Amino acid sequence: MDLATIIGLVGAFAMLVMAIFTSGGTIMTYVDIPSVFMTIVGSYFALFTSYSMSDVLGVFKIIGLTMRVPKFGEQAIITKLMSFAEKARREGILALEEELEDLDDEFMKKGLRLVVDGSDVEIIRTLMENELNAMQARHAYRIGIIDAWSKLAPGMGMLGTVTGLIAMMKNLEDKSQIGPNMAVALVTTFYGAIMANMVLIPIMTKLKSHDAAETQVKEMIIEGVLSIQAGDNPRILALKLLSYLDPVTRKSVEAEILKD
Amino acid sequence: MDLATIIGLVGAFAMLVMAIFTSGGTIMTYVDIPSVFMTIVGSYFALFTSYSMSDVLGVFKIIGLTMRVPKFGEQAIITKLMSFAEKARREGILALEEELEDLDDEFMKKGLRLVVDGSDVEIIRTLMENELNAMQARHAYRIGIIDAWSKLAPGMGMLGTVTGLIAMMKNLEDKSQIGPNMAVALVTTFYGAIMANMVLIPIMTKLKSHDAAETQVKEMIIEGVLSIQAGDNPRILALKLLSYLDPVTRKSVEAEILKD
Amino acid sequence: MDLATIIGLVGAFAMLVMAIFTSGGTIMTYVDIPSVFMTIVGSYFALFTSYSMSDVLGVFKIIGLTMRVPKFGEQAIITKLMSFAEKARREGILALEEELEDLDDEFMKKGLRLVVDGSDVEIIRTLMENELNAMQARHAYRIGIIDAWSKLAPGMGMLGTVTGLIAMMKNLEDKSQIGPNMAVALVTTFYGAIMANMVLIPIMTKLKSHDAAETQVKEMIIEGVLSIQAGDNPRILALKLLSYLDPVTRKSVEAEILKD
Amino acid sequence: MDLATIIGLVGAFAMLVMAIFTSGGTIMTYVDIPSVFMTIVGSYFALFTSYSMSDVLGVFKIIGLTMRVPKFGEQAIITKLMSFAEKARREGILALEEELEDLDDEFMKKGLRLVVDGSDVEIIRTLMENELNAMQARHAYRIGIIDAWSKLAPGMGMLGTVTGLIAMMKNLEDKSQIGPNMAVALVTTFYGAIMANMVLIPIMTKLKSHDAAETQVKEMIIEGVLSIQAGDNPRILALKLLSYLDPVTRKSVEAEILKD
Amino acid sequence: MDLATIIGLVGAFAMLVMAIFTSGGTIMTYVDIPSVFMTIVGSYFALFTSYSMSDVLGVFKIIGLTMRVPKFGEQAIITKLMSFAEKARREGILALEEELEDLDDEFMKKGLRLVVDGSDVEIIRTLMENELNAMQARHAYRIGIIDAWSKLAPGMGMLGTVTGLIAMMKNLEDKSQIGPNMAVALVTTFYGAIMANMVLIPIMTKLKSHDAAETQVKEMIIEGVLSIQAGDNPRILALKLLSYLDPVTRKSVEAEILKD
Repeated sequence: MDLATIIGLVGAFAMLVMAIFTSGGTIMTYVDIPSVFMTIVGSYFALFTSYSMSDVLGVFKIIGLTMRVPKFGEQAIITKLMSFAEKARREGILALEEELEDLDDEFMKKGLRLVVDGSDVEIIRTLMENELNAMQARHAYRIGIIDAWSKLAPGMGMLGTVTGLIAMMKNLEDKSQIGPNMAVALVTTFYGAIMANMVLIPIMTKLKSHDAAETQVKEMIIEGVLSIQAGDNPRILALKLLSYLDPVTRKSVEAEILKD
Repeated sequence: MDLATIIGLVGAFAMLVMAIFTSGGTIMTYVDIPSVFMTIVGSYFALFTSYSMSDVLGVFKIIGLTMRVPKFGEQAIITKLMSFAEKARREGILALEEELEDLDDEFMKKGLRLVVDGSDVEIIRTLMENELNAMQARHAYRIGIIDAWSKLAPGMGMLGTVTGLIAMMKNLEDKSQIGPNMAVALVTTFYGAIMANMVLIPIMTKLKSHDAAETQVKEMIIEGVLSIQAGDNPRILALKLLSYLDPVTRKSVEAEILKD
Repeated sequence: MDLATIIGLVGAFAMLVMAIFTSGGTIMTYVDIPSVFMTIVGSYFALFTSYSMSDVLGVFKIIGLTMRVPKFGEQAIITKLMSFAEKARREGILALEEELEDLDDEFMKKGLRLVVDGSDVEIIRTLMENELNAMQARHAYRIGIIDAWSKLAPGMGMLGTVTGLIAMMKNLEDKSQIGPNMAVALVTTFYGAIMANMVLIPIMTKLKSHDAAETQVKEMIIEGVLSIQAGDNPRILALKLLSYLDPVTRKSVEAEILKD
Repeated sequence: MDLATIIGLVGAFAMLVMAIFTSGGTIMTYVDIPSVFMTIVGSYFALFTSYSMSDVLGVFKIIGLTMRVPKFGEQAIITKLMSFAEKARREGILALEEELEDLDDEFMKKGLRLVVDGSDVEIIRTLMENELNAMQARHAYRIGIIDAWSKLAPGMGMLGTVTGLIAMMKNLEDKSQIGPNMAVALVTTFYGAIMANMVLIPIMTKLKSHDAAETQVKEMIIEGVLSIQAGDNPRILALKLLSYLDPVTRKSVEAEILKD
Repeated sequence: MDLATIIGLVGAFAMLVMAIFTSGGTIMTYVDIPSVFMTIVGSYFALFTSYSMSDVLGVFKIIGLTMRVPKFGEQAIITKLMSFAEKARREGILALEEELEDLDDEFMKKGLRLVVDGSDVEIIRTLMENELNAMQARHAYRIGIIDAWSKLAPGMGMLGTVTGLIAMMKNLEDKSQIGPNMAVALVTTFYGAIMANMVLIPIMTKLKSHDAAETQVKEMIIEGVLSIQAGDNPRILALKLLSYLDPVTRKSVEAEILKD
């Protein structure tokens, strides 16, 4: 559960509700079902024109990904890679085979299996980097869908407002209706701005930082697997892996790992 | 037939029509032939200034491409490459010659023909990558035309609105005409926003994802052809090709391919 | 003569004139000499601050380049390179010397002269690529000037409108003058939008596609010259060169060239 | 203490207060607690949706970094690297070991320790560049948080204004309240523009130049350490290091360093 | 003296003054000292928050750089490099030593000194490219300061207008004051647009083209120095250097240089 996402969404909406009350309005002033259809459903339809059926139907699942904190366990990975490196140096690379059974991390497992099978270093590197690149392309594609929506929603909101303004202009006789009609016309802009600023742009940003974190962990694993294959000095391996951590975490892990 | 494109276009227009009715207007309020000419035809003319005659006349054909789902058959390609790789290892590369006759994929055929002819690996790679790059350049060029239109249409819409506002301002005496004149002036902005948000930007996005998918398939074929040329272990080839698939598809294909 | 550019400019202006008439205005409403000076001349002056004297004075010549369709003759170049390659294989590279006299293409001539002189492949590649890069830099620089103008013109138009609005606001007593003053203030925005959307941005786009086409032809020539220097198989050379053509043209050329 | 940051913030706010007074307003006209919550707190909440809990809580610490001038001591580093290079040439690389004890710069220390330990040049380069890349990624991530806030704040300000306008439009009867209501609606836009233009964008820019300066110093240290490892001529090392300084500083350091 | 810069600034301001008079205003309508402070001084203060003290104080010196045309003397440099190349081939590289004394160009001098000293080609290339990169980074940094100001100025102008609008809205009773108050509020937007469109963006563009020209000259010198070091054929060197010139200049220089 990513508490930050929940706090962010709930908090921003709470601020908005407060702004509505202090503006002297009521929630009902801001609820207009046709405007919801025009702005949110309309931009969701425009997403169908932009992507494939399965991409668009899967967009809520993508959004759902931001509701949990991804756990990559950098420290555990470093410890594991260090212990593998030492075992490989002491007992030979084949000794890693039995360890692979219990390994949870599919990516590290696939890499080490190639090492144990005696594959060439270039093949191992290519295969692991291909897989990393494919993951990044997949993430970028998904982030692109949210990005497209975050631009289409205010676009459709603006279009809804222009639609409302034209209808209003055609019919200016009843002066008392100008204000309320204008208010309704603005509601689609209001929904578009909420979708973009409070939901879609923040969620896209979170997906980007998940991607950055996962990429970094995978790069660390590639570095580690290739180091084990090359029979690097475990001290050098430790230095390589630690350089991926931020200074604070690094200090604590360093003390522990390099002590022996 | 790309149902998603159809659903997207029809759905978004349906939302717009609904917004028109709930705004108290009628469809006729939003139909203004001179505004269609100013915004849509005008921006299409600006496209002639921007591109060559044949590019601009071909723009509807480009848009038409988004009406069907491109089928690249990744799984069939992987299976085919795998079977070629095994045959080449068992019977030698020349044994592939007869297979080439029935091969539909022109790109794979051209690559494998070079392999069978005993061309140098660097020449094969260069030729195939040149062809991939040329395809990407061609796609980017076409996408650029739609992109240009998606910016020119709202630009011309805005210009139409300014044109209408100036005429209106010159003639403010008849107060009863201010509203209707303003409404007409806004219709070009309305058309520009429809063209951009509901048609051209979504279509450009879909063309981009078609390009990404076709690029990926071609990269997969290059990888496969070079692997066959190098006489790689089929297991390694399978790992290489599978890394292009998304995890879900990969799981199912993997089970099937690697079982033997 | 690039008919597309002419059609584009004439057509877009015709649409604008039509929009003016249907807005109930007259052409004279939109002609305001001081606004022309403020927007068009003013942004042209800002271009002097941005570039060197000769660059700015040469801007109309750059615009003039879009009035003709550049002819690069890809097919003739391919045929020529193919025939040179065959001659070089049959009679030796020195046999090309006499052919160089009649060669129109300066770039190909310079490259082949280096080949005939027996220069090192790396020197030929470097010299030809340097020249291509210099051409691209020169084009990008020129396109940058048009780009700068396409942003300065609406900027100055907006500034003119703010200038007019301030004067109008200071003097609101005569209500009957508000409309006409506002109309005049908006004319600079009108001119800025015309300059950007109907003239400068489309012309910049056309210059970019000229650059892309010329770059591609020069890359094709480099590929061909280096292939001749290396004594490549003419069939391989044909495949290399054909990969630069779009599929339709390629088919027709292919049939002809590869038949023998 | 970075006096420039303080002067910048205080000065810009002073200009704003002056503008308020000369507009005939009072500070209290611009103080509206609900608008603060909507714009500043609301965009801070949207930051929670965008980043992880610890990232968002740490944002004030990041902002605090711009309150002090970072001191990298380029000249001292150059002098130190020069003296190490000379010592290494005279007494051998092992002679550097005792110097490392007193070295403050952790990055240079780690690099030189690897040199003293006799590590391979590629390993030293990779480890040092990994660490530099990791630092840059960390900085870019932090700068990204401020960047996101600098866009969300005016976004929420605009949303607040639309919210206020809708409430106002619904209730146009009391003409005397239109002005004041509009004023309140605009206050969120006012806060959003302050946050972006006076605080967040400038702070982001300063963080970027801190990052550029630190990157340059670290690149200089890598160059120096690798030069010492390679046993370069100290004169060459001096030329390499001096090329990182701007011409004025370089002149003065040059005179001093190259005299002997 | 860069006449173009002067003509550009004077001309654009003349157009603006003309627009003021034809709008029926007087210069005094547009002179508002508090607005100058808010927009120009305010954005200058925001620059202090963005950069270091010395950077911001040096900004006028950077702007001053656009008042003169930089002279790089490409033709003289080519001639000089050609004569050095010939001398080096005839009399050996050491013969260049005496020529270095009188060489004005510091960059060429430093490079040739390294050649005369017998430094390794990789060291010469690295040192010269480091220096070029450092120059480019320094230029990009300075251009970034002007860029930042060109965005902060209209930002502060907009903020000033919002500030004025809020004050005006709070006090709508005196209808006769609405117009003049609005006019004053708009003056900050007016100043912001002048700063951006007429001064800062054009000056930034000119700085960018200075940088491009200087980079090109330095790249030409690097190419020349390395060619001399390698003992290249002077004809090849001439071809290399000429490829940096535009076709017109090249023709004239070519005729002269290649005649012997």
